[in-house]
Amino acid sequence: MNIIKIIEKKRDGKKLAKGEIEFFVDGYTHGSTVLDYQASALLMAIFLNGMDDEELGYLTAAMINTGDVLDFSKESGVFVDKHSTGGVGDKTSLVLGPILAACGLKLAKMSGRGLGFTGGTLDKMEAIPNMRVEIDESAFFKQVREIGIAIVGQSKNMVPADKKFYALRDVTGTVESIPLMASSIMSKKLAAGAEIILLDVKFGDGAFMKDLESATELATRMIAIGEKLGKKVFAEITSMQDVLGRMVGNALEIKEVIDSLKGNFEPDFKELCLHSAATLLKAGGIVKTDDEANAMFEQVIADGSALKKLGEMIHAQGGDNRVTSDESLLSISKNVVDVTADSDGYISYVHTMDVGILSAEMGAGRLTLDDKIDYSVGIEVLKKLGDEVRKGDVICKLYHNSAPEKVAEFVAKAKKSFVISAEHVKKPPLIAKTL
Amino acid sequence: MNIIKIIEKKRDGKKLAKGEIEFFVDGYTHGSTVLDYQASALLMAIFLNGMDDEELGYLTAAMINTGDVLDFSKESGVFVDKHSTGGVGDKTSLVLGPILAACGLKLAKMSGRGLGFTGGTLDKMEAIPNMRVEIDESAFFKQVREIGIAIVGQSKNMVPADKKFYALRDVTGTVESIPLMASSIMSKKLAAGAEIILLDVKFGDGAFMKDLESATELATRMIAIGEKLGKKVFAEITSMQDVLGRMVGNALEIKEVIDSLKGNFEPDFKELCLHSAATLLKAGGIVKTDDEANAMFEQVIADGSALKKLGEMIHAQGGDNRVTSDESLLSISKNVVDVTADSDGYISYVHTMDVGILSAEMGAGRLTLDDKIDYSVGIEVLKKLGDEVRKGDVICKLYHNSAPEKVAEFVAKAKKSFVISAEHVKKPPLIAKTL
Repeated sequence: MNIIKIIEKKRDGKKLAKGEIEFFVDGYTHGSTVLDYQASALLMAIFLNGMDDEELGYLTAAMINTGDVLDFSKESGVFVDKHSTGGVGDKTSLVLGPILAACGLKLAKMSGRGLGFTGGTLDKMEAIPNMRVEIDESAFFKQVREIGIAIVGQSKNMVPADKKFYALRDVTGTVESIPLMASSIMSKKLAAGAEIILLDVKFGDGAFMKDLESATELATRMIAIGEKLGKKVFAEITSMQDVLGRMVGNALEIKEVIDSLKGNFEPDFKELCLHSAATLLKAGGIVKTDDEANAMFEQVIADGSALKKLGEMIHAQGGDNRVTSDESLLSISKNVVDVTADSDGYISYVHTMDVGILSAEMGAGRLTLDDKIDYSVGIEVLKKLGDEVRKGDVICKLYHNSAPEKVAEFVAKAKKSFVISAEHVKKPPLIAKTL
Repeated sequence: MNIIKIIEKKRDGKKLAKGEIEFFVDGYTHGSTVLDYQASALLMAIFLNGMDDEELGYLTAAMINTGDVLDFSKESGVFVDKHSTGGVGDKTSLVLGPILAACGLKLAKMSGRGLGFTGGTLDKMEAIPNMRVEIDESAFFKQVREIGIAIVGQSKNMVPADKKFYALRDVTGTVESIPLMASSIMSKKLAAGAEIILLDVKFGDGAFMKDLESATELATRMIAIGEKLGKKVFAEITSMQDVLGRMVGNALEIKEVIDSLKGNFEPDFKELCLHSAATLLKAGGIVKTDDEANAMFEQVIADGSALKKLGEMIHAQGGDNRVTSDESLLSISKNVVDVTADSDGYISYVHTMDVGILSAEMGAGRLTLDDKIDYSVGIEVLKKLGDEVRKGDVICKLYHNSAPEKVAEFVAKAKKSFVISAEHVKKPPLIAKTL
């Protein structure tokens, strides 16, 4: 087989065969048969001419086969997984996971780190004293077997093709391709072994997908890949036009996770957790109806069993699980400054991505891969999209560790992120669509 | 400036600015600011999204500026140049050049070598005993000053960008892009310094462009580049549905060149030489009308001055110019086999590319860059497209140096290359269009 012929075929808008796609993926990942500059030319041709569902299935399978695949078939229980395409204040996995485990599902999840405007679940977990997220495979299996939940970093030799492709796409202008994004996400999710997968595809100001259409397309392509490879995949398309929940920043988000599991949910965040839990509880055969799912959700919150699961996971991964009852063990900065409204009106638009970037600039995230994280800083959002405000009301609070000039700059940026208009604005639905 | 942004811009179908194109070309050719895999991604984006005439002008100028440019502005006389996109049996430059020089124009031409189905002017010249085609710049200038003509290899440091781009395009499926082909050809032609350029853009079975439309598009783009960069560029779109003239192969083609300059032209080859000469003689201000051009053409053939120019060039470049009066000095194989017609009828189609490949397989050309050439072999074509044939007539003769089994194979291939049909077929015009 000849990579030049394969590039030419896709360049000319033709469909690639299974063997051709495998030759490309294997040859680039492991061999010297496909060189960097050939892979980037083909990726650009795929970017511009696309791939159909069958090609995407072959591409994803070939990527998965370049590395290790987790196999839960000898384990008891129903293994589910959940993936978010990334947003601002998205701590859903850390609440949903313990709830699902408390309801009897198994969640063996591999998460990522934050970059740019998005935070990462692993970074948030590391805000808990001594918490470990790098765990070897046998300990990971044992933990899930015993307590039903583990959230860890991706194992080193999983989908090496994705790592190579992503690094190349990042420097060749081929990142924002829906088929390539879909195969990248799904290769990692499918290699992680769950039979049932829920995708939370976010759209809007604070998401990678800027509109409902592109988010729907990404979700549709990912579901198709899952079907081609024999998995049950569900998707919810959710708005990221506002910060999700109340907190942005690592220790602050862990505080919100614990508050939520104690029943003190922000309404939008509860809506998302409840909907996600219902989808997976039904798909996993735990309940039959949404009503049953809702009842079970309320039950595991009310009886403390979901919070207990979080504590078990923290303990199993070396963390100090006293944080679940004593939030003062979380290191949250004592330097707090209020950001207030300059006029009466309604929050008519939230520059959500700017909120995420501000949080990263304050130290809660990474603007470049080498940045160190300050777990104690972040933003607490008190006014949500559509809320009425009066001049002087606190819109948000900044938890910082910065010099006064910097703080003044942060406050100015925060203020600009929340647009106040005289007319009432209706908040759009959080869950725009389910697929 | 950032190459990723530039790639994304072209990927999204936008027009690149002058500075962006220069950054790309310089950064890839000389620096480390644009890496192989970024250049190939951008080349694929250009392949698929195109470039307008302004972008192509900037691209070509930037490519030219990466290396040396010949400057004839201090020389006396009108410098013309001529380029063929390549065909089978195309020895036009070697006849046209001496005619133009004999008429008073200056031709300082850089030519190429053959690969695949096309022969190269330099290879043909080297079929003349002791002929040199690698000549240093001062000797090249001196030769043109003294005798009005030199045909040599491209100087080493001319358009290095084109060499790098071409090598990369060759292995990344981005060769057959009309804008990229146009800028590649024009960068070399414009760096070679002539003010007036004639492009012979060939189409049909034995050409790179398979149809009149794509050949016209290539010619149009090249003329536009020439105009953007202030040169007079003309184009003729000519059919390569049949071998041009009578001979294919190096020493054989030199024999045809000498025969032609003695007035013994094949009709189609004369038509092309005459038309090309008239275009350049008029553009160069030597004559005003086609009639004057034709008269001058016939004159320099009849009085032997064109043949004398060929001899002067051969002598100046170290070759044995006695070949112009004694063709036996050309080493042409004595092993000749006739290929005959199996039926009565008319030559209805010539698989011209197959004739070129056959000639290369016999040893007259290169199938790979490392192949050595046998200057003495080739094909003499006696029946042209549209000619009537009778069973047993000789269609062509093979001059070979091969074992009998190989020769039988060559004869079979040659026979298949000339299709005989019962109905009369009208030969299409050689010159389809002039621009």
